[in-house]
Amino acid sequence: MTELKNDRYIRALLKQPVDVTPVWMMRQAGRYLPEYRELRKEAGSFMDLCTNPELACEVTLQPLRRFPLDAAILFSDILTIPDAMGLGLYFEQGEGPKFNKVIASKDDVDNLPVPDPELSLTYVMDAVRTIRKALKGSVPLIGFSGSPWTLATYMVEGGSSKAFTKIKKMMYAEPKTLHALLDKLADAVVLYLNAQIAAGAQAVMVFDTWGGVLCPRDYKLFSLQYMHKIVDGLKRTYDGKTIPVTLFTKNGGMWLEDIAKTGCDALGLDWTIDIADARKRVGDNVALQGNMDPSMLYADKARIEEEVSTILAGFGDGSGHVFNLGHGIHLDVPHENAGVFVNAVHQLSKQYHT
Amino acid sequence: MTELKNDRYIRALLKQPVDVTPVWMMRQAGRYLPEYRELRKEAGSFMDLCTNPELACEVTLQPLRRFPLDAAILFSDILTIPDAMGLGLYFEQGEGPKFNKVIASKDDVDNLPVPDPELSLTYVMDAVRTIRKALKGSVPLIGFSGSPWTLATYMVEGGSSKAFTKIKKMMYAEPKTLHALLDKLADAVVLYLNAQIAAGAQAVMVFDTWGGVLCPRDYKLFSLQYMHKIVDGLKRTYDGKTIPVTLFTKNGGMWLEDIAKTGCDALGLDWTIDIADARKRVGDNVALQGNMDPSMLYADKARIEEEVSTILAGFGDGSGHVFNLGHGIHLDVPHENAGVFVNAVHQLSKQYHT
Repeated sequence: MTELKNDRYIRALLKQPVDVTPVWMMRQAGRYLPEYRELRKEAGSFMDLCTNPELACEVTLQPLRRFPLDAAILFSDILTIPDAMGLGLYFEQGEGPKFNKVIASKDDVDNLPVPDPELSLTYVMDAVRTIRKALKGSVPLIGFSGSPWTLATYMVEGGSSKAFTKIKKMMYAEPKTLHALLDKLADAVVLYLNAQIAAGAQAVMVFDTWGGVLCPRDYKLFSLQYMHKIVDGLKRTYDGKTIPVTLFTKNGGMWLEDIAKTGCDALGLDWTIDIADARKRVGDNVALQGNMDPSMLYADKARIEEEVSTILAGFGDGSGHVFNLGHGIHLDVPHENAGVFVNAVHQLSKQYHT
Repeated sequence: MTELKNDRYIRALLKQPVDVTPVWMMRQAGRYLPEYRELRKEAGSFMDLCTNPELACEVTLQPLRRFPLDAAILFSDILTIPDAMGLGLYFEQGEGPKFNKVIASKDDVDNLPVPDPELSLTYVMDAVRTIRKALKGSVPLIGFSGSPWTLATYMVEGGSSKAFTKIKKMMYAEPKTLHALLDKLADAVVLYLNAQIAAGAQAVMVFDTWGGVLCPRDYKLFSLQYMHKIVDGLKRTYDGKTIPVTLFTKNGGMWLEDIAKTGCDALGLDWTIDIADARKRVGDNVALQGNMDPSMLYADKARIEEEVSTILAGFGDGSGHVFNLGHGIHLDVPHENAGVFVNAVHQLSKQYHT
C-alpha cells in the first residue's frame, strides 16, 4: 500500500520525533459542517450514511478538505457490534440510540453471536477499504470501536442512560452474567478491530464513554479488564507497520496509571485533567491524546489560540502528544473555529519540536 | 436550645471520637419511600412540599422514623436562591427544573437582587425552625445550598444541561459577566446559609453538582473560588457550637487537595474515588463523607453489607468519616435496602472505633 505522506499522527503515538504536534478532532465528520448537513438532507439518516461505504467515505473526507487535519477517522457508530449481534439499533428524532432487543439474562448473553465482521459488518469493512483508497496515503485512517463496558450499557439499558440502573443491577446481582457479556463483547471487538486493520485502518481507538460511572474497583473489573483483553488480542503490526492503539475512558482521569498498564500506545484524555499532570503521571509509558474542552470552540479566535497555547505548554517539549478535543466536537460550534483550532496547534507547536 | 442526643455526625465531621460511624443518605427524604409518595399524592408538587414548612418538616422526618439515621437534612431544592432572585422556578412532569427567565448579559446579572432570606425565602427559614423543633435534639439538622457555579448553570442554561453550551460560551466570551454572577451568588449563598444556621441548622453542606464538567483551571476559577468565599463568610460557630461545613463536588475526585484548602471541615466524595486514597491525600486536614455507589442499593443484603464493609475498611480506624452514598438515593430502590445499608454501617463500624 501507499506510504503515508503525513505520518505525524502515527509518529506522535509512537513517540517518534515530529515537526509539529499532530491534531484531529473527535467527531470531526459531523453536523457542525454545512456540507455534512447538506448530505444528510439528501441521503437520509445517520445510519444511512454509516451503512453506505461511498457516503461514509465522502463524510469522512469532508473535514479533511476544510482543515489540515493529521488523521481521518472512519465515519461509523460505536454500536455497530450490538446491532450485528441482532439487537436492532435505531435512532429516534432528537434522542439517543435505542435497541429493539435488550440483554437481561444469562440466556440472552449465551444466545448472542460473535459477529464475523466480513460477513455481518461488511458495510464497515467496505467503508474502511473505500476511505483508505480515497485518502491516497495523505493521512492515516483511524478505526475504532466502543469498549465492551460501554457497549454493554446500551445493550442492557436498551439505549442511553443517566443512572445505569439495569446494568448496575446486573453488575451487583449477577456479576457472572455481566462478565460473560463483556467477555463476548471483548472477543467481538478484537475481531472487529483486527478486521478494520486488515481492511486498511492504520491505527485504532477504543472509546469507553461510560467507564467513568463506575467506582475504581468496578472500573478495573468490568471495563479496564476487557479493554486489556482487546489490547492483547489486536494485531499490533500489519503489513510491516506498527498499528498504534489508543484507549479513551471519559472521566477516567484518576485511573491513567492503570489504563497505561494495559500496554496500549496512547491514552485519550478528556478536559477534566491537566495534561501536564497526566504527562508527569504516565508520560514515560504512553503517548497522550487531548484535551481541549470542546466548548472552547464557542470562544473567539484569540481565546481558542490562548487555550491551545496553554495545553501545548502543559505537555511541553518533545513528541508523544496528539492534540485533540477532550470529547466530540459540539454540533453547533462555528466550523471556522475548528479551523482556528487546527491551525493554532500546528503554528504554536513548532517551538516544542526542535 | 436542646443538647443533641445523637451528635455522632457533628463529632465525626470534627474528627472527634465516636462509638460507630455516623450515616445519612443524600436525598434520604424522597420518592423511594412509600409514605413520601403517599404525601405527594395528597399535597401536590415537589415545590408544594418545599414551600409548606409543616409538610417539609413531615417529609424531612419520614426517613428518620424508618431508619436510625444520624442526621436530618432540610427538605428543599438547590434552586431556591435563583427562584427568590426572580427567575421563576418550575418543574415539568418527568423533566428537570426550569426557569422562566434566564441570565444572558451583564445587565441581567446587575439587575439580580441578593435575596434577604428572612424576607424572600421565609418558607425555607420557617421549615428549618419547624424541623429543628420537631427533631427535639434527636439528631442534628443539616442545612444546604447549591454552589454558585451549579446555580449559575441552571440560571444561564434555563434548566438542566448536558453540554453546558450557554454558560461555557459566557465563560469563554464574557468571563467578567460570569464572575459577576458567581460573586453575587456567593454573597446570596452566604446570607442564605447563615440564615439557616440562625434558624437552627447545626451543619451546612454546599452541593457542587456540576463543577466536574470544568477543566482543572476553570474549576478553580469559576467554582472553587466561590465556594471558598462561602466558607470564609459562614458563621462557623453559633450559639456556642461549631457549625461544620461540607463541600461536595460531583466528579471532583482529582481536586480534593484544592477543595480541602478552602478551610471546610469535610469533603463529600462520590463513588468514583477510593476512600482509602482520599484519606491518604487529604484525611489529615478534613473529614470525609461518602461514598457508596447509590446503585448498590439495588443489590441484595449480603452484597450491600459487603460493600459497606469494604468502604469502612478503606477509611480504616478512627473518626473523620461520615458514611453516605456517593450521590442521591435512586427513587426506585427498595426502601428496605436503605435500612440494610444504615444498619450495616452502624454494626460493621464498631471495630474501627475502640
